[in-house]
Amino acid sequence: MKTRRSFLNRLGIVGTSLFFPLSANAAPAKDFLIHQVYFWLKNPEKDTKSFIKGCEGLIKIDSIKKAYIGKPAATTRRDVVDHSFHVSLTIHFRTMEDHNIYQIHETHKKFIAKHEEKWEKVQVYDMKIE
Amino acid sequence: MKTRRSFLNRLGIVGTSLFFPLSANAAPAKDFLIHQVYFWLKNPEKDTKSFIKGCEGLIKIDSIKKAYIGKPAATTRRDVVDHSFHVSLTIHFRTMEDHNIYQIHETHKKFIAKHEEKWEKVQVYDMKIE
Repeated sequence: MKTRRSFLNRLGIVGTSLFFPLSANAAPAKDFLIHQVYFWLKNPEKDTKSFIKGCEGLIKIDSIKKAYIGKPAATTRRDVVDHSFHVSLTIHFRTMEDHNIYQIHETHKKFIAKHEEKWEKVQVYDMKIE
Repeated sequence: MKTRRSFLNRLGIVGTSLFFPLSANAAPAKDFLIHQVYFWLKNPEKDTKSFIKGCEGLIKIDSIKKAYIGKPAATTRRDVVDHSFHVSLTIHFRTMEDHNIYQIHETHKKFIAKHEEKWEKVQVYDMKIE
C-alpha cells in the first residue's frame, strides 16, 4: 500500500476524490451498532453446548451483519475483568432498523422461548460505533 | 455467491478441498479474542471528547487486529440493557499473546496515566471467539 501510495504520490493524484472509495474500504468499518450480550447459565456444564447451538441458529437472522459467539477468555484475573459469564453473543448491525428487525424476528422469539429457562441472568450493552 | 455456487455445483466441484480457502474467507473470523471495555466517566459532558481522543491514540498499538470506539446506542430501554456507560472500547486480538503485548505496551500505560482520573468505573469482559 505504501509503495502504491508513493507511486500515486509521484503522479500527484493521491488524496483526490477519485480515490475516496479506495480509502473508505481500507478504513475500519464505521457507523454501525454492536449489540453485546452476556449470558449466565443456571447449569453451564449441562447446557452450554445446546445453548451455543441455539445461538448458532439465532445468528442466521439475515439483518445481522456479523456475529461472534464467545466464552470467557483466559486473560489475567483482575478486579475490573468479569470472567463469570458463560456465553457471549456479539452482533454487528449496519443500522438501528436492522437491529429492530432482529429483535422482533420470529427466529429470535423462538430462540428465547426455547432457551430462556437456561439462563439465570442476561446483560446487554448496545454500542453505536461512529 | 449463490449464482457462483450454482454454477460450480453444475460443474460438480463445490465442497471439494480445492475450495476450502474460499469458504474459509467467506466465513466469520474465528479463533480470536474480543477485549470489551466500558467506561463510566466522572464528568462525561466535560471529558468524553478528550477521552475518545485518548482512545483513538490507544488503538494504534500494533498488536491490535481491529478496534471500535463506541457510545451507548439509542436502542429501546429494557431492564437487561445497560445504557449507562459513556464510552466503550472494543478490541479484537488475533491471539492471547497480542492481547498481552497490548496490556503492557508503553502507549497503554501512558493512556491509563493520562486518563484514569476521568473514569469512575471501568468494566471489562474478555471473550474467546471459537
